Amino acid sequence: MDTLEDAATPALVLDRGRLTVNAQRLIARARKAGVGLRPHLKTLKSIDAARIAIDPQHGGIAAATLNEAAYFASHGIQDIQLAVCLPPGKFPRVAQILRQAERFSFFIDSTETAVAAATFARTHGVPLRVWIEIDSGGHRTGVAPDDPELLAIARALGSGVRLEGVATHAGQSYADLTPQAIAEVAEQERLAVVTAAQRLRAAGFDVEGVSAGSTPTTTHARSAVGLTEWRAGVYLAGDLFQAAIQALAMNDIALSVLSTVISHHRARRQIVVDAGGLALSKDRSTATMAGRDGGYGLLTDIDGRPFDTSLHISEVHQEHGVVHEVDEGSFEKLPIGARVRVLPNHACMTAAMYDEYLVTDGGRAIAARWKRTNGWA
Amino acid sequence: MDTLEDAATPALVLDRGRLTVNAQRLIARARKAGVGLRPHLKTLKSIDAARIAIDPQHGGIAAATLNEAAYFASHGIQDIQLAVCLPPGKFPRVAQILRQAERFSFFIDSTETAVAAATFARTHGVPLRVWIEIDSGGHRTGVAPDDPELLAIARALGSGVRLEGVATHAGQSYADLTPQAIAEVAEQERLAVVTAAQRLRAAGFDVEGVSAGSTPTTTHARSAVGLTEWRAGVYLAGDLFQAAIQALAMNDIALSVLSTVISHHRARRQIVVDAGGLALSKDRSTATMAGRDGGYGLLTDIDGRPFDTSLHISEVHQEHGVVHEVDEGSFEKLPIGARVRVLPNHACMTAAMYDEYLVTDGGRAIAARWKRTNGWA
Repeated sequence: MDTLEDAATPALVLDRGRLTVNAQRLIARARKAGVGLRPHLKTLKSIDAARIAIDPQHGGIAAATLNEAAYFASHGIQDIQLAVCLPPGKFPRVAQILRQAERFSFFIDSTETAVAAATFARTHGVPLRVWIEIDSGGHRTGVAPDDPELLAIARALGSGVRLEGVATHAGQSYADLTPQAIAEVAEQERLAVVTAAQRLRAAGFDVEGVSAGSTPTTTHARSAVGLTEWRAGVYLAGDLFQAAIQALAMNDIALSVLSTVISHHRARRQIVVDAGGLALSKDRSTATMAGRDGGYGLLTDIDGRPFDTSLHISEVHQEHGVVHEVDEGSFEKLPIGARVRVLPNHACMTAAMYDEYLVTDGGRAIAARWKRTNGWA
Repeated sequence: MDTLEDAATPALVLDRGRLTVNAQRLIARARKAGVGLRPHLKTLKSIDAARIAIDPQHGGIAAATLNEAAYFASHGIQDIQLAVCLPPGKFPRVAQILRQAERFSFFIDSTETAVAAATFARTHGVPLRVWIEIDSGGHRTGVAPDDPELLAIARALGSGVRLEGVATHAGQSYADLTPQAIAEVAEQERLAVVTAAQRLRAAGFDVEGVSAGSTPTTTHARSAVGLTEWRAGVYLAGDLFQAAIQALAMNDIALSVLSTVISHHRARRQIVVDAGGLALSKDRSTATMAGRDGGYGLLTDIDGRPFDTSLHISEVHQEHGVVHEVDEGSFEKLPIGARVRVLPNHACMTAAMYDEYLVTDGGRAIAARWKRTNGWA
């Protein structure tokens, strides 16, 4: 059997046991909160991971690209929410995907796109399905719950486009916040989207879905009243940022990069591994988190046990990851050719560089290889 | 014919005319300096680009991964220098590639790897080819030119491993330096590797190749005396960082990301496009360059003409790129659905997310689609 000892490096390792625990934990939290869970597959982009992540009482997923949506549709998933605003030029591709996934929907945040959707639906006889995106303080996309445009969008959709509901994502929860502060963001997220649903209903629109969430907010939320579903994604893989904000524990992190030591420089107290900027990504989301800064990734041994936290990748070049301030004992433990694993700063960015996962069940044996989908079209 | 007006976005655009000019310019500089040019294909990873980049008087290329080496070998390139130190566990894969590319070589910077290479070559009857990597001040990998280990490595190689020569890359040239300061780094780079070659020759070793370079140093070097070849890569594509340090002009940049406007928020003076952290990478190498900070990428119109420099991506999420401080006129020019191109901060990182290039000859027509290779094994 193939093992992590002889796989080519760098490679992406996914611990199936941890993935399953992470998936089950949030499904249980959602159940307790009285909502369904819609796992966001933008991080893992794998049908095998989706099968573990899907909440049987909900059945749906979220995706971030048309490519992901088409991939999951081709694997038989019907309820796919593309949680991004699409321009009208992408509607023909949406129509193609709707032939395989009849509950495929996407986000909308402007009257002009709503008008274009209504026109497209009428012209082509395709019943598009949309969620009006609400801005709950992340200020990325979405309309504010009290914006007059909210009702204008709903009106513009007309009868040819199905309004699935309202949806939001409090992107501001991805900051260095305490669990208490994240709980407050979760409340802001919930109130924004619930308020929007109430305004639309008061104006006579049928609003079935009320969708909100992120890994930080679903983990720390105190209430889900008024919501119908939570949406989160990175909790499945976990990463150093999520561990730093206590969304999960360090030993819940299911994703790591298998890497090999390629160079030593004792005088500079430096070890170089074959996982650099491409293998790890250049995400530095823990950069400002004192005491929790994981550089470009934290080193563990081949079995996933962290060394001292000082052993992290502090400098990357395209194919080189440099560990500085290495002590003498670590040179002995990590000779040239030694294998390590690197816990990523941001799982979504790191995983995107790979076509497959080496799936383990905790040990060194490669139990399976799961394909990922990448790209956009 | 397909055009940039109807291609799915985000997508990677390569201007063949600019690529050709960039390639020819450095070949001409190398010729004038009396050295061959070994283009580094780690940025473009495409045989079509390699055919334009290869110096006919040299014939070789550099690569950064075994996957790239195998890909270019499969397309018939014989002289491939893998400009990274390899651990002994990768020698069996090297032996495979040598069957297709007889002048395939790699870097080495330790006696223990040299011993392992000699053992592998003897045991398997495979004449490995190596370059001893010299540290010319970048402090990544490589031995210092005056390090006693330099001679120890050459001795350990024995007769079964061919010493191709000595090679270096002054990684410190990737900093915010003036052309004058880069010229000084180029001189440091040249002297380090020439000194190493002289020490080895004085000790009786045959050192044919003396290889040095980077885009900044080959652009600004005043001398190549003692070198046999230059090595550089990103000059082919160009990016905002290289433009900022005057390695090339803004309108030499051949690589861009085609993107579509997906959301407007006039009150926040914000436009959102469908090129985010994955489509652009999170590289921020221009972050500290006052007046030349391109954020996560600079917007141009669909024909590649930059707008005001204030129109750059200043915030990215996985699939969202946010442009802030948009003036009223730009909302008119860039309605939802409008197409823009984004000039990347760092071409190597941005290109790595794509499987193909939409190749143009300056206009909007897609003249060709060139495949890229990605991954490691």
